[in-house]
Amino acid sequence: METNNTFTNETAVSPALFTTEALLNHWQGHRALTRRVIEAFPEDAFYNFSIGGMRPFSLLTMEMIGLAAPGIRGVAFGDWTFGDPVLDHSTPPPPTKQEVLNLWDLVTEYINTLWPQIRPERFEESEAAFGMYENTILNTIIYLIDNEIHHRGQGYVYLRALGVEPPAFWDR
Amino acid sequence: METNNTFTNETAVSPALFTTEALLNHWQGHRALTRRVIEAFPEDAFYNFSIGGMRPFSLLTMEMIGLAAPGIRGVAFGDWTFGDPVLDHSTPPPPTKQEVLNLWDLVTEYINTLWPQIRPERFEESEAAFGMYENTILNTIIYLIDNEIHHRGQGYVYLRALGVEPPAFWDR
Repeated sequence: METNNTFTNETAVSPALFTTEALLNHWQGHRALTRRVIEAFPEDAFYNFSIGGMRPFSLLTMEMIGLAAPGIRGVAFGDWTFGDPVLDHSTPPPPTKQEVLNLWDLVTEYINTLWPQIRPERFEESEAAFGMYENTILNTIIYLIDNEIHHRGQGYVYLRALGVEPPAFWDR
Repeated sequence: METNNTFTNETAVSPALFTTEALLNHWQGHRALTRRVIEAFPEDAFYNFSIGGMRPFSLLTMEMIGLAAPGIRGVAFGDWTFGDPVLDHSTPPPPTKQEVLNLWDLVTEYINTLWPQIRPERFEESEAAFGMYENTILNTIIYLIDNEIHHRGQGYVYLRALGVEPPAFWDR
């Protein structure tokens, strides 16, 4: 097999491709898919259906919202005073799916508004996200996306168990 | 709110941080977690348990293997002759979990071996992954990772439904 001797650990991956805009689009593409998963849930099941003692999808959604909104604020301004939204389960979801979707859309706008305010060098800075999780800002953002994919995948099982066809995973 | 007027759509995200090595570690970190999820399954449930008509975790694992192995080959060399492993469900999983784990480890090594052979400029090239999915090589890799997180999240529900505590999501 051909080997590439110019490879070093310092090689940057496609800096021209992996722009801040590409990362934002990647995140918002995932959020748009998650929104369609929320929409696919029957109203009652969104609040009450779960498997194996897990949280219903409304609470998983509230975790995503509770990470994304304070998350983008911390990412942009270094203000993590919201505390840990995963550990703090005290905020109940709004009582209708439509209100949760409205909240979701508000967070979408909030992310779009704050994103251009992130200093470019900020992505490399290391900081305790939510006051607890030491990581670079870039890795914190990637963690938020991964966490959303993880929980949304769980929502797919809920939907299948409910006999509801989930939206296509690849459609973002 | 402070605005950052130096932001443009062309700003690269932390090229110094998001190196090829960081991307490989990110992928292998996820793969290590998925390996622990496979390990957590009771032997029989790995092959037979499912929810809502979905595939058992053995088949979801085979999809991941069937994407990762031909995927890294295509990524490195542009050879996508393996065809589409998602559409091609003809390969049955090995009959024991240990053999699936051995296959998993072989793919881990295969990725580590081929990764340094990826030309740095390759990540920006656009190509039909598996002969079908037109995307940049970088985005194809990210898609493979996202797809694994998605299906692994489903495995978490299976484990919870089986009364098995899954490994911590954040531990990679």
